[in-house]
Amino acid sequence: MMKLYDYGRAPNPRRVKIFLAEKGVEVELLNCDMAKGEHKTPEFLKKNPSGKIPVLELEDGRCLGESVAICRYIEGMHPEPNLMGRDPFEIGHIEMRNRHIETEFWSQVGVSWVNGPIVGAMGIFKQIPEAKVASDENVAKYCERLDIELAAAPYVAGERFTIADITLLTAIDFATSLVGLTIDESNSNLWRWHAQVSARDSVDVQG
Amino acid sequence: MMKLYDYGRAPNPRRVKIFLAEKGVEVELLNCDMAKGEHKTPEFLKKNPSGKIPVLELEDGRCLGESVAICRYIEGMHPEPNLMGRDPFEIGHIEMRNRHIETEFWSQVGVSWVNGPIVGAMGIFKQIPEAKVASDENVAKYCERLDIELAAAPYVAGERFTIADITLLTAIDFATSLVGLTIDESNSNLWRWHAQVSARDSVDVQG
Repeated sequence: MMKLYDYGRAPNPRRVKIFLAEKGVEVELLNCDMAKGEHKTPEFLKKNPSGKIPVLELEDGRCLGESVAICRYIEGMHPEPNLMGRDPFEIGHIEMRNRHIETEFWSQVGVSWVNGPIVGAMGIFKQIPEAKVASDENVAKYCERLDIELAAAPYVAGERFTIADITLLTAIDFATSLVGLTIDESNSNLWRWHAQVSARDSVDVQG
Repeated sequence: MMKLYDYGRAPNPRRVKIFLAEKGVEVELLNCDMAKGEHKTPEFLKKNPSGKIPVLELEDGRCLGESVAICRYIEGMHPEPNLMGRDPFEIGHIEMRNRHIETEFWSQVGVSWVNGPIVGAMGIFKQIPEAKVASDENVAKYCERLDIELAAAPYVAGERFTIADITLLTAIDFATSLVGLTIDESNSNLWRWHAQVSARDSVDVQG
């Protein structure tokens, strides 16, 4: 059985776990205790030189890092249900939408996270409070854009559930839990989408 | 003929132009004058709601944004020469390496860019000089990692030229030209790789 290096409520492994659950693919979950620095040991860096989780380890020992790269491998091995597109244009469109969420929303949630109280208390990064002020605003502004987009289409990439919905769901749940951000209730289409996607069986994996 | 919205020396359209040249695919280049805000007009936002270039416009009018999404569409339509992997594992591996460069290197070059003198003079972003100090250091540190990796393998994703090399090349050229960063000469494997990749016919497109 393949192994997935995971850690508690970390949002990126969660993306992969939801993707795997949608596909019905089982893996052995291994806890990589980031609080103890287990993602930075020489042994782990052989699995992923970037020292990050998730990492998927195949039965033959080969490893893949980066959530979307892992998902794309799984999509290739287990094509149904399709989550990343069926023809070149749809594949490109879903990747574009997934990247919009990553580069314009996730990235800003990430700035608020590294400059927020939990990471601050760890003392591993020099905090830049000004950066958090800007990223908090960017997150709120992007939610307004998402609300308009999710009024026009039921899912992030259009008419059906895809990897882009998993990316947005994990970003929002991380933002509103560990990062401590609030997403305004006025974004009613976004919240409609959130309730709908959260109700999927695959999403229980937050645990 | 497909159209590509492009702008001068902007590094992301350059990624796509090199990729297209490797594939031998011709497109009509259209200048989207970012200095005049042409990427933020209502008409352009219909093509890409993120208001960014490059955008690929197909003959039927459908559009794709996000460099890698555009490249993946082209890879699907024109599979040879292969630049994104031939089987699920290789496809995942190349995506992982491409994302390493994007999330760990490009992102830091980007922070130095938006907090650097050219963007500063535009007055469109609140400058955070502290952020640039950190990102400049991160860029230098990552070059040391790349130098070790490129001692062990000729290309970013291993034995052959892929999209991950295009991503790194455009990041380095942007960093050392418009962003004004210096990459230390001691990174001799990185510079060997840079000379080799820069010599490809596809790379003339900077011109």
